[in-house]
Amino acid sequence: METITLIPANSLLTATPEEGRQLAIKMARLIIKATQPDAQIREKLRDVYANDAMMLIAIGQTVATEFATIAAANDYWHVTR
Amino acid sequence: METITLIPANSLLTATPEEGRQLAIKMARLIIKATQPDAQIREKLRDVYANDAMMLIAIGQTVATEFATIAAANDYWHVTR
Amino acid sequence: METITLIPANSLLTATPEEGRQLAIKMARLIIKATQPDAQIREKLRDVYANDAMMLIAIGQTVATEFATIAAANDYWHVTR
Amino acid sequence: METITLIPANSLLTATPEEGRQLAIKMARLIIKATQPDAQIREKLRDVYANDAMMLIAIGQTVATEFATIAAANDYWHVTR
Amino acid sequence: METITLIPANSLLTATPEEGRQLAIKMARLIIKATQPDAQIREKLRDVYANDAMMLIAIGQTVATEFATIAAANDYWHVTR
Amino acid sequence: METITLIPANSLLTATPEEGRQLAIKMARLIIKATQPDAQIREKLRDVYANDAMMLIAIGQTVATEFATIAAANDYWHVTR
Repeated sequence: METITLIPANSLLTATPEEGRQLAIKMARLIIKATQPDAQIREKLRDVYANDAMMLIAIGQTVATEFATIAAANDYWHVTR
Repeated sequence: METITLIPANSLLTATPEEGRQLAIKMARLIIKATQPDAQIREKLRDVYANDAMMLIAIGQTVATEFATIAAANDYWHVTR
Repeated sequence: METITLIPANSLLTATPEEGRQLAIKMARLIIKATQPDAQIREKLRDVYANDAMMLIAIGQTVATEFATIAAANDYWHVTR
Repeated sequence: METITLIPANSLLTATPEEGRQLAIKMARLIIKATQPDAQIREKLRDVYANDAMMLIAIGQTVATEFATIAAANDYWHVTR
Repeated sequence: METITLIPANSLLTATPEEGRQLAIKMARLIIKATQPDAQIREKLRDVYANDAMMLIAIGQTVATEFATIAAANDYWHVTR
Repeated sequence: METITLIPANSLLTATPEEGRQLAIKMARLIIKATQPDAQIREKLRDVYANDAMMLIAIGQTVATEFATIAAANDYWHVTR
């Protein structure tokens, strides 16, 4: 497996929920990259899922699960870092 | 990726469960927007998923996961803010 | 979006697990209503999913996730309210 | 909705993990019953999902989520009741 | 429902994560067995899902959810039993 | 079932989130291996899912759930090991 950095900055901690949300999207995408390292294939697949209602919904489910972990890691940003 | 605000008010904290539920729907929709920034395409896809039983159910699963995170962030609104 | 009440009584707290379960079903249905406000279309879709094994199972998954949140909110009804 | 008891004994607490597992299956089935009250239709659908690999797997996902809630409610049976 | 033991040793506690992982797979399989008691049908379905990429992935999702519960039950094996 | 090691080093504890993420991917793959021990079949299926948008998304959902468990096990790496 091409050594791809799966978690930018190697931390789940972010300053704000918005950054945590961005991280969740990034982490979800990096798993697709790690599973399919070929950028051209991914670009072709992007056109597929970005125009398919069910796939867009499924991506939302993945991000929701990733975000749940990131939010817990940041104690839901009760204390702003 | 078009810089889309993914979490309105950059906070998971809401005054009530109802507002938390609204936030969960909003956050789920913003991920679809972030993945498919073209409003016309999204509108077309809206007609697809809003008339498809399985997709409506799948949207419910996403919102349920987002809401679980928001509810935990608000300590289940045991103390009204 | 038609302003639909998403959480009856604006609270996750219920007297018993049974009521919590009813609330989970209600909350799941209200997301479908919020996404597809047209009652006629929903009625038509009801005939679809109520007779489709996979869709019935998928509804069960949504309710299970909603219920997990409601059960945690009620501290699993260890103390009867 | 036909008033169906959704949680037998109106409690998530069971003496053992095995009983908790049985309750998870029961609770998952009762949501299908609540969504499709017609026993004949359910029996017909049972023949469908009991012979379909993906549907059997999807049922397992629902039970796993229900069981996670029941296990947490019973503090993972660290203390036998 | 044929009385099938759903949780071997009627406990979620295992000595190690590896045993916990084995238990998660076993528990997931026992739900399929409880839903489809006929061994011949299950064997036939095994050939289906073991050669279908999406079904193999879906099995992984079930095991991941079961394992999350077992890991929490064992406090993530911070203390080796 | 061929005795396959399901959790390398028989521990969920990792030094960093990145290693935790790698472990999540590894654990997800080992379940597919445990369910389909034949390396040739798995290689053939790899070509299927690595080129299928929905399957790539589904893999991401599995990894997200596995990672949630690993992150909780490591207390979200608040304290670097």
